[in-house]
Amino acid sequence: MNKKIVLRDDQMPLQWYNVVPDLPGGLKPPLDPETKEPMGPEKLAAIFPMALLEQEMSAERFVDIPEEVLDILKIWRPSPLVRATTLEKALNTKAKIYFKNEGVSPVGSHKPNTAVAQAYYNAREGIKRIATETGAGQWGSALSLATNKFGLECKVYMVRVSFEQKPYRKSIMHAYGANVVASPSEETNTGRAIREKLPDTPGSLGIAISEAIEDAATREDTNYSLGSVLNHVILHQSIIGLEAKTQMEIAGDYPDVIIGCCGGGSNFAGLAVPFVPDYLEGKKIRFIGTEPASCPTLTGGELTWDFGDTAQTTPLLYMHTLGHDFIPPGIHAGGLRYHGMAPIVSAMVRDKIVEPIRLQQLECFQAGVLFAQTEGIIPAPETCHAIRGAIIEATREPDEPKTILFNFSGHGLIDMASYDKYFAGELEDFDYPTEQIAESMAKLPKL
Amino acid sequence: MNKKIVLRDDQMPLQWYNVVPDLPGGLKPPLDPETKEPMGPEKLAAIFPMALLEQEMSAERFVDIPEEVLDILKIWRPSPLVRATTLEKALNTKAKIYFKNEGVSPVGSHKPNTAVAQAYYNAREGIKRIATETGAGQWGSALSLATNKFGLECKVYMVRVSFEQKPYRKSIMHAYGANVVASPSEETNTGRAIREKLPDTPGSLGIAISEAIEDAATREDTNYSLGSVLNHVILHQSIIGLEAKTQMEIAGDYPDVIIGCCGGGSNFAGLAVPFVPDYLEGKKIRFIGTEPASCPTLTGGELTWDFGDTAQTTPLLYMHTLGHDFIPPGIHAGGLRYHGMAPIVSAMVRDKIVEPIRLQQLECFQAGVLFAQTEGIIPAPETCHAIRGAIIEATREPDEPKTILFNFSGHGLIDMASYDKYFAGELEDFDYPTEQIAESMAKLPKL
Repeated sequence: MNKKIVLRDDQMPLQWYNVVPDLPGGLKPPLDPETKEPMGPEKLAAIFPMALLEQEMSAERFVDIPEEVLDILKIWRPSPLVRATTLEKALNTKAKIYFKNEGVSPVGSHKPNTAVAQAYYNAREGIKRIATETGAGQWGSALSLATNKFGLECKVYMVRVSFEQKPYRKSIMHAYGANVVASPSEETNTGRAIREKLPDTPGSLGIAISEAIEDAATREDTNYSLGSVLNHVILHQSIIGLEAKTQMEIAGDYPDVIIGCCGGGSNFAGLAVPFVPDYLEGKKIRFIGTEPASCPTLTGGELTWDFGDTAQTTPLLYMHTLGHDFIPPGIHAGGLRYHGMAPIVSAMVRDKIVEPIRLQQLECFQAGVLFAQTEGIIPAPETCHAIRGAIIEATREPDEPKTILFNFSGHGLIDMASYDKYFAGELEDFDYPTEQIAESMAKLPKL
Repeated sequence: MNKKIVLRDDQMPLQWYNVVPDLPGGLKPPLDPETKEPMGPEKLAAIFPMALLEQEMSAERFVDIPEEVLDILKIWRPSPLVRATTLEKALNTKAKIYFKNEGVSPVGSHKPNTAVAQAYYNAREGIKRIATETGAGQWGSALSLATNKFGLECKVYMVRVSFEQKPYRKSIMHAYGANVVASPSEETNTGRAIREKLPDTPGSLGIAISEAIEDAATREDTNYSLGSVLNHVILHQSIIGLEAKTQMEIAGDYPDVIIGCCGGGSNFAGLAVPFVPDYLEGKKIRFIGTEPASCPTLTGGELTWDFGDTAQTTPLLYMHTLGHDFIPPGIHAGGLRYHGMAPIVSAMVRDKIVEPIRLQQLECFQAGVLFAQTEGIIPAPETCHAIRGAIIEATREPDEPKTILFNFSGHGLIDMASYDKYFAGELEDFDYPTEQIAESMAKLPKL
């Protein structure tokens, strides 16, 4: 039996899939924070290229993938679909578990799928420099790789705690020629203001986003780039699920359950959305998004209008949020520490297509170690949340021969410090952050 | 055009290729250090399983790969063959450059190819525990992965300087359940003796080998495992070249030049040996082994009998050596810091099949950064030596449309500290270690 299904370069999807026109309840467009009116592309054109804004608002179900983008994705794509046979045996389950291995990219995660596309469109429209934020460093690495391929400069505002604790990530960005600074930094008004108020802050993704947007908005040659949340990001990530559909077909199988971990929502949605049309036509599929108990955006937040960043500079997005001021307690899955959630994923939760579940970090690391010791690959801490979800599904009714597909969003080789803490017994589960959520929800913008 | 050639699981080679019977000048068997007579398998059976000893001495050209081994290799194999089109453009060369990407394994290098086979044969013969050494940590990670798959305990003696400078490697071994200790350690007579004499020694691969062999020789349940140098290791690594041959055929091409970096010789030989029969039948192929100027085993050593380890406990191998006492100056390609060379590679140099060339570390890091910024993948410092070799060949006669194939033995994501030093200008080239070589060569065993 084939352990995994690989595709040739010439079997790659030639179009991305846009789920927005298929969402039963539709999607509310972003609002201008000043006028509270729907925001047209002209105002956002200061920080995004027109091609991406068109994709952001597109009602087309399919969008051609430019050849220049495909050429770079082919460095590692199509990614393998692997049957986790050894994990199945260890769990003593009749469920079949498949995973899509996005860890094979040069930076070890799914993030370059959209980074390459975003760098391409920016370069095509004459932009010379891109500013962005990064939490754990996965997104910054991905964008550094992508901008370098198109001859763009890259400026990365990296959440301070990660900047200090994850030096390898910084080095990877340097190898791709990027300029990396700890956030809050001295280089923006937002950064300086926060440093004055909170000199010891570990930083947050919300703060780093504000800095990157300010950088892009104040420089003519510079645009901004976001690694998750937005519609065009999920469009680009749909390549994961499109490949997986072809691969499942070759395997002669079809998923009953599709699982991914949710930070901003892009890796989960990237795998899930291409299966949504089948679901809407009556196919029984359960979509499960797993999130950390310390940052429970989908299970503990509210679906409402909020800013994407701390400094309240982004448009208002209609999404699940814990409040733009929410700073989650320090869990080691840095990529899941975001107060908001992609509007697309939020809408799918609202429409009862997606079931969110909340997980503690110890059960997730335990799942990750079991995965490493069965399937041989060490998962990123974020990915451990998807694996834990798959294990819960596979062992809930172990005699039911269901087919589970999850997104292996990235490997953990660059996050081993978290595993060290786990093995040393230094990690603990978190109480539900009731007070922090109440405090930040009180600061939601009034409409 | 396809950027890379991938094979399906069911296109994997089912047999390894053993080059020994095809070597024109033959191979001298190892000698018993006490009697100076050829050493039979019985004495080595204390630390190796019979199946591996049979492979070590085998005159068969092909050996079946056990299904249990294939099943585990399929986690990441067959590995992709990639055309380095962007690098070619940057070099302005008409040469075609292909690389075999062994960085896709779960630990990021080619090492698990033999680790899995070795763990399998040990487990099949009832062994419960394996002791080994590791330099930079690539081999220790690979064996930890492999032993874990077969339920064996794993004890790794890790060269002290790497143990301290590469904590992530240690964590990876822990994730696979291995027990790792800095070498020289307090756990063996060899280790204790060296610590008493040289309390501040950074350790060396030769010392760590001695410790692991002592561990294995003094415990009934324990065998020893070596990650390079030996014939059976190169047999297992031949899967690299066997796959590459099939892939080059699919690409409609054939290599004029085959290049690999040489530490113990196994990644280079693994790619090269399956092409040797064609060479012997008259096909024009140049085989180039690249080595660091600070540890110039092939270009500065002598082909003679020497021990594989510092404590003089191994059989005497007929190989290129700088003397078993040689401790190279600190270069950052830890995997290339070995005083000896695989007898198979040594014989191929003697028979003028392989041309060795010597490279400085700065030119290699420069090549590695160029590779990262063209092909998108950050190479391990060892692999930079192969890339530098490929660049030299591609730019020597840039108008000649030759086909170059090199082994991308591993990615550098876990070795970014070396790149940091390179970017900070803290690395320098080394003078040829004339005195150290003379000193250690004076201590070669007398026959």
